[in-house]
Amino acid sequence: LAQILQTKNKPREEEIMATKKDEGNDEAEIRQQIDRFVKAFRARDVNLMMSLYAPGMVSFDIVPPLQDVGKDVYRKVWEETFALFQEPIDIEICDLSITTGNDIAFSHKLLRLQATRTNGQKTPYWERLTFCFRKIDDKWMIAHEHVSVPADLKSGRAVLDLKP
Amino acid sequence: LAQILQTKNKPREEEIMATKKDEGNDEAEIRQQIDRFVKAFRARDVNLMMSLYAPGMVSFDIVPPLQDVGKDVYRKVWEETFALFQEPIDIEICDLSITTGNDIAFSHKLLRLQATRTNGQKTPYWERLTFCFRKIDDKWMIAHEHVSVPADLKSGRAVLDLKP
Repeated sequence: LAQILQTKNKPREEEIMATKKDEGNDEAEIRQQIDRFVKAFRARDVNLMMSLYAPGMVSFDIVPPLQDVGKDVYRKVWEETFALFQEPIDIEICDLSITTGNDIAFSHKLLRLQATRTNGQKTPYWERLTFCFRKIDDKWMIAHEHVSVPADLKSGRAVLDLKP
Repeated sequence: LAQILQTKNKPREEEIMATKKDEGNDEAEIRQQIDRFVKAFRARDVNLMMSLYAPGMVSFDIVPPLQDVGKDVYRKVWEETFALFQEPIDIEICDLSITTGNDIAFSHKLLRLQATRTNGQKTPYWERLTFCFRKIDDKWMIAHEHVSVPADLKSGRAVLDLKP
């Protein structure tokens, strides 16, 4: 945005500063959305979770199918996911990166879910998490999510013992 | 961009039209970059492939490790990947979606690689592919890539038999 205003309109110094401040705000607002994602996951709060997604969102989830399209579908996915786990659910995030534009942004990070399934199974693996955001009515919403673990294509195994 | 110019500068009609045209160009340019990705993959052309990535790019690849950081690292990954396959390599893409902003964009799609490894193994699976772009020196470059197949977390298997 700063670059465009400079090229097209030769902005005054205070306008550039305002733009820089906006960019800082955008990054802070996206951090808040990621914090809400973590909070919703920990609390198994489907409504808070779904408030983060844009209409028409597409998810490439860690489990099948290949993609989930739309909030109605994805609400069911989160309901089923939350039903798998006992509380407490602990989440650790590392290598968080946020890149913002004027109305599109993206963020990638590694996430470890430390939780116990209702069947007693532990989930100690690190996964990769990408969010692509659209700014809609001045709010950063997740329009696309991609979450995965790497695969060993020779053995056909999901690789669950990797560390950052 | 259109929205911002409208809010901040009340543009004339021809400026709005120019903006709309730019947005169309951005989507077309990103399609061209994806076409180049497919072309580079088919031809096992490492230089063409690496010309698509931004400095400091981060990849969450289909195979370990959790992430590859930087073009030097990722060039080696592509060299090793291309060495795995015999020609011809056929690629099919479906459910392509492109979302553009003024200098950030993202795209997601499903991709099937139909190829034979040098060990004779076939790769008939569908994978999920996300690109996050930054516009650098007026070119759309891949700053983040995420490619995966879903996992069956109960059995620990990568799920390779899914169809769009």
